[in-house]
Amino acid sequence: MKVLVTIDSFKGSFSSAEAATVATRVFNHYGVQSTGVTLADGGEGTSAAFLANQEDGHWETVMVHDPCGKVIDAKYAYVPTKHIAVIDAAMASGIQSVKTDLGFVDPVTTSSAGTGELIMAAIKHGATKVIVGLGGTGTTDAGIGLMGVLGAKFYDSYHQLLPAVIGSLALIDHVDLSNIATENVQLIACTDVDSYLTGASGAVQMFGPQKGLTELDLKHFELWFQHFSQQVDPTYQGRLVGDGAAGGIGFALRLLGATTMPGFQLMSHVAQLDDKIAAADIVITGEGQLDQQSLHGKLPVQVAQRAQRFHKPCLCVAGNIKLTVPELQAAGFTTAFSLVQQVTDLESAIREGKQNLALLMERLVPLLQIIGPDRL
Amino acid sequence: MKVLVTIDSFKGSFSSAEAATVATRVFNHYGVQSTGVTLADGGEGTSAAFLANQEDGHWETVMVHDPCGKVIDAKYAYVPTKHIAVIDAAMASGIQSVKTDLGFVDPVTTSSAGTGELIMAAIKHGATKVIVGLGGTGTTDAGIGLMGVLGAKFYDSYHQLLPAVIGSLALIDHVDLSNIATENVQLIACTDVDSYLTGASGAVQMFGPQKGLTELDLKHFELWFQHFSQQVDPTYQGRLVGDGAAGGIGFALRLLGATTMPGFQLMSHVAQLDDKIAAADIVITGEGQLDQQSLHGKLPVQVAQRAQRFHKPCLCVAGNIKLTVPELQAAGFTTAFSLVQQVTDLESAIREGKQNLALLMERLVPLLQIIGPDRL
Repeated sequence: MKVLVTIDSFKGSFSSAEAATVATRVFNHYGVQSTGVTLADGGEGTSAAFLANQEDGHWETVMVHDPCGKVIDAKYAYVPTKHIAVIDAAMASGIQSVKTDLGFVDPVTTSSAGTGELIMAAIKHGATKVIVGLGGTGTTDAGIGLMGVLGAKFYDSYHQLLPAVIGSLALIDHVDLSNIATENVQLIACTDVDSYLTGASGAVQMFGPQKGLTELDLKHFELWFQHFSQQVDPTYQGRLVGDGAAGGIGFALRLLGATTMPGFQLMSHVAQLDDKIAAADIVITGEGQLDQQSLHGKLPVQVAQRAQRFHKPCLCVAGNIKLTVPELQAAGFTTAFSLVQQVTDLESAIREGKQNLALLMERLVPLLQIIGPDRL
Repeated sequence: MKVLVTIDSFKGSFSSAEAATVATRVFNHYGVQSTGVTLADGGEGTSAAFLANQEDGHWETVMVHDPCGKVIDAKYAYVPTKHIAVIDAAMASGIQSVKTDLGFVDPVTTSSAGTGELIMAAIKHGATKVIVGLGGTGTTDAGIGLMGVLGAKFYDSYHQLLPAVIGSLALIDHVDLSNIATENVQLIACTDVDSYLTGASGAVQMFGPQKGLTELDLKHFELWFQHFSQQVDPTYQGRLVGDGAAGGIGFALRLLGATTMPGFQLMSHVAQLDDKIAAADIVITGEGQLDQQSLHGKLPVQVAQRAQRFHKPCLCVAGNIKLTVPELQAAGFTTAFSLVQQVTDLESAIREGKQNLALLMERLVPLLQIIGPDRL
């Protein structure tokens, strides 16, 4: 019986790498062969997951500006032998930076410049391939801050140079990309959401409210984004899948030459997930909350679909399971169990996430042992 | 794949019969063959479990005195074809009657007379075999109230007749059992605890505090019980296993000619548990809380041991699991899962017990289907 464990990070509880470590430790203790795979889907933890699947990568730390302009340390993963850098936009432009005890920072003052600075630092460091994971950001600036840092020049209709800030979006007439730093770099934008720059499921209307945009902001930002995308991207006008990721950083990266791809596709390739599933008898995956949103291609559902392709059962573990067993099975899961195994409050459940994961794995071991490899 | 479900009642959530119904309904829905068995171990629910395993039994309702002397309706199970009555002492003398919003009723004023009245009613109704389940009572009167109702006469050393109340215990010199109603009746006392009438693990010291006995009460009652048992039971002095059950009703019933036996032994026989385990591929049992105390022969552990004898895996479900997997396995369980599958408070968990049981069963179905009958 060989178990493959590949669980998404549980926000506040454990990373994907920690989940793999905890689970495989339990299985090994009980003599069940297991392999842990660290995965991410373009959301937070993408750079860490990438690093976990490399032999010679390391972290590089640089000073960047957070969404509010404050100087912070941020890091990116670097693989020197391959000249690959992997960046989490959330490290420089994360949602945590725009939340205060009194509420959200005024969204109009925020900027994705920090993520641009991370990319610039990686390029200067020698990266020829830069992968950017777009989840978990706190900015909604259509990536204009990032573009400015990387050499894009924005002009109004009088050919006056405009600062690369949200306030310029409505005034921009054309953009000059002739001197961008990403010119000779392979740039890959990893998205965990399928959204356009504008519209009902776009960067503003869908994701703005959770970043502090008010009703009025939503109207203004939507108009500014529409104008901006019409002027600088006449062909697609921000209507390619992934343009809306990270408050529009997806759109900005595409203008800078990036290929956009689902983070899971890239990361599962890096982690050689298919080979590992093929070699396993059963797959265990999971995420913090398993709900209707998960069905739109969240990490565990993608893992389940891969497992199904290889005819392997796939158990899902989650803090909160909001899907019925038929829904789980339709998504490719065999079944799912909750990490919560006793009366507890949310805070304790999150704090004790690792112990709860270990406990659930321990309780599953005897059933896996009964099942045995030849059953599957 | 044939599943046998036999789960103890979860206090406040569901009875053993309800658990069997809920679980088998889920299994049948998913095309998994299953049988539900209602069980009890001499604790509350013994009469209901007995009735569930009979074809022609019914309830008989009679008016009795509760521990405080209040007249209440109480019922017992009756099987007319076999002239068997099954009584829960808790129906007439239950713990619920001695608890008030302001605390416990003074224990010295309580009486087990009501249970005696139930037995008397059953005998008058034609019962020739009376089974009494001894769990869940609120009285600690050494069964003197019950004995009085059934015809025992207590005398002091001057051969003065004493009332059958706790206050007489210290004065009793001898007892006259020549006119007891249980003379020609087969009386069986079913216990779910192994305790003597007196001593550290006895009716007073072990179970008194949870029935409202104060520190001082404990001293007095212990002395009274000692005196009483020395006078009326010179041979054993209340030191047979089960004498301490139900605040000493176990002792009283033995004096009245009862055979004492573990409730599980009797009920599993009535339910033909062994045959049903032999015919199943896997057994699912459970109780509200699975802890160190469970290991002292609580219902699920007894079920697990029977299952082990037939080499069948045995899953345990519980609200709260306080045993490690190695401890569970040492007790005979394959593994255990909690009914609690999300962040919740105790009150909700109890209130939603039935739904939670159904949900857990539903989540287990796919694993049982993978396992298949030939695996076990």
